[in-house]
Amino acid sequence: MDIKHYMGQLGRQARQASRAIAAADSGVKNRALLAMAASVDAHREAILLANAKDLAAGENNGLEPALMDRLALNDKGIDGIIEGLTQVAALADPVGAISDLNYRPSGIQVGKMRVPLGVVGIIYESRPNVTLEAASLCLKSGNAAILRGGSEAIHSNQALAMCIREGLASVGLPETVVQVLETTDRAAVGELITMPEFVDVVVPRGGKGLIERISRDATVTVIKHLDGICHVYIDDAADADKAYAIALNAKTHRYGTCNTMETLLIAETRAEELLPRIAEAMMEKGVELRGCPRTRQIFMGAVEASEEDWATEYLAPILSIRVVSGLEQAMDHIAQFSSGHTESIVTENYTVGRRFLREVDSSSVMINASTRFADGFEYGLGAEIGISTDKIHARGPVGLEGLTSQKYIVLGDGHIRV
Amino acid sequence: MDIKHYMGQLGRQARQASRAIAAADSGVKNRALLAMAASVDAHREAILLANAKDLAAGENNGLEPALMDRLALNDKGIDGIIEGLTQVAALADPVGAISDLNYRPSGIQVGKMRVPLGVVGIIYESRPNVTLEAASLCLKSGNAAILRGGSEAIHSNQALAMCIREGLASVGLPETVVQVLETTDRAAVGELITMPEFVDVVVPRGGKGLIERISRDATVTVIKHLDGICHVYIDDAADADKAYAIALNAKTHRYGTCNTMETLLIAETRAEELLPRIAEAMMEKGVELRGCPRTRQIFMGAVEASEEDWATEYLAPILSIRVVSGLEQAMDHIAQFSSGHTESIVTENYTVGRRFLREVDSSSVMINASTRFADGFEYGLGAEIGISTDKIHARGPVGLEGLTSQKYIVLGDGHIRV
Repeated sequence: MDIKHYMGQLGRQARQASRAIAAADSGVKNRALLAMAASVDAHREAILLANAKDLAAGENNGLEPALMDRLALNDKGIDGIIEGLTQVAALADPVGAISDLNYRPSGIQVGKMRVPLGVVGIIYESRPNVTLEAASLCLKSGNAAILRGGSEAIHSNQALAMCIREGLASVGLPETVVQVLETTDRAAVGELITMPEFVDVVVPRGGKGLIERISRDATVTVIKHLDGICHVYIDDAADADKAYAIALNAKTHRYGTCNTMETLLIAETRAEELLPRIAEAMMEKGVELRGCPRTRQIFMGAVEASEEDWATEYLAPILSIRVVSGLEQAMDHIAQFSSGHTESIVTENYTVGRRFLREVDSSSVMINASTRFADGFEYGLGAEIGISTDKIHARGPVGLEGLTSQKYIVLGDGHIRV
Repeated sequence: MDIKHYMGQLGRQARQASRAIAAADSGVKNRALLAMAASVDAHREAILLANAKDLAAGENNGLEPALMDRLALNDKGIDGIIEGLTQVAALADPVGAISDLNYRPSGIQVGKMRVPLGVVGIIYESRPNVTLEAASLCLKSGNAAILRGGSEAIHSNQALAMCIREGLASVGLPETVVQVLETTDRAAVGELITMPEFVDVVVPRGGKGLIERISRDATVTVIKHLDGICHVYIDDAADADKAYAIALNAKTHRYGTCNTMETLLIAETRAEELLPRIAEAMMEKGVELRGCPRTRQIFMGAVEASEEDWATEYLAPILSIRVVSGLEQAMDHIAQFSSGHTESIVTENYTVGRRFLREVDSSSVMINASTRFADGFEYGLGAEIGISTDKIHARGPVGLEGLTSQKYIVLGDGHIRV
């Protein structure tokens, strides 16, 4: 297969289909989503059979257990896919919403209309359920989609792609509104991210290596998520119980998520009182503690933190702890080491909280709440295509709105510029 | 001078200064702008002297008259710079505005806060007045700026940079909030657009060649303006007088601007009635007409349009004209040839207008108004750093808001995720 030619064709088809889906009524889009759900339900056997093929191949190729686990589909997994489609159908349609429509001195009315981005490319790894998650969010936001799943899930994804096409066709939408790559050739990714004439934005979902590679090579705009080095700062004016609960939750609720706390900062005035209690509870849960010299004076169970620790996303039961002189040093530390994902302050002081909220430059900034709340569902977006650590276009959890933009609309009555 | 080292230093300084300007009160920023204006007023002589140096060098180097014209400053030009600074000081400050702050089922409040992008790089050509325009917009939107003006304006820009620094210092802001490059070395641009660790976004202002080069080589996000191939479509249901007035205004109000109409589309049912009147008026104004075969049947004064004409931004008294079968063909033509800048329909038909508004994918879409209105001032933005033909982040005229983004804020009271 000539990959360049194949991808060019997919791109042209997507660009063409993007006009149809951009103009489609919410009702048509919702019916397509429900038809996809019905199709997935009707083809359970075929999907599970395809998935079994992928699992067998994965075992032959010695795929890691964690990846095998993410690859596996069962009836419950399929129920989840159906439920996801139903939920996206129930979300409000952002497309076409007009805002700020006002008369100008010239007599024209100027406003903004929310519009799809056009063609969205999604690159993801082994989980086959992402195929329908990505397809449904792109479709609902009026975009055509080109999906490139992991090569280890190729059969599962092709079975699901058939359901997507069936759903689209059943409501009269072009089947090319969502195209799932039929090749596992890695060169396809290289093409997808360098066709700005056909693709408006690429969202890579997966490990940091994948995302860095794509960001480096792409000529198409990339909405990306890099590190999640999240901080909780326990301020001089923190409530002790809230500090304890938030620190524990932010670290130990789940270890492998991007919104998990990796570094705890604590004000010097409160360290002797609060550190031992928090540290002991962490160690009881099996968290390894790495502290600054002052931390280790107060709590001997912590090993020495290196400079590298402050810049590391552990994604594991490890926590670095630093005692700071107060708000200023905490914000300096965050400015230097944060990945711009999520930071939280624990304080009862109005002025300190107000400053933290304004001055900390991360996609989510919190007062007296666990960093674990940084999530599209918790924020009420209904669904998320990912969390952006970029500063342009979309920051933080990206839902339907993040897959749209706004154009200006002008209404006149024969107005000319004088 | 080691350019890599020099630019790295500028970048580090800008990144550092960005924290101070992001946290600065509106009042401080406004006083800085007014102090810059006062400084420009006080140093008129020095600025004009520096400008004379640039003009002399330009004459020696055989600079084109058009460029010499754009380079030249006089007392009126300086008045304009002062007026511009005063106007930006009077604009509302977008930074810190909180929207959509709502309680979630978990009890946390989630909202969005408007925040600066961080460090903005602006690359522009000969006009020295852009130096203060760019500086003032970046500063007001809470961003640190690195400005790279044309090499032919180096002395003028250095004199103006001195006034900027004086203004910043007078209110206690770091002088590194706005840094104007002191070198004319072209390698500096290459560095500026490849320092994502220090620069968050680059806005190139200038010819298409410059912008294409920068877009191709940048690893930093670019907010760019490429072609302005704008269309007016005169629909079956157009009011004849409005069609005439809008077509004439869109083409002949100014020829060299990006929002000038380059192609006129006209519905077959109205061509015989309307084309001759419009075409004659265009020719009277000295506009060369290039038409499709049907256009030339109706109006013999038009020469034959080639396929290339539909894809050309003339920026000159030339107009291509095509007779189309109706709305569908007009929208197809626009989808194929438009640069996504501005399109307008002339129609009295509600349904046709409603479809055009939704389905045409350009940064500005108009009904019964001249494309010449696509402008930050006409839209009420107060000022513009440029017009974006991108689909991500900012579309159309980019004002203060386009130089900001939104972060999520979360307010809790010890909330943890269960």
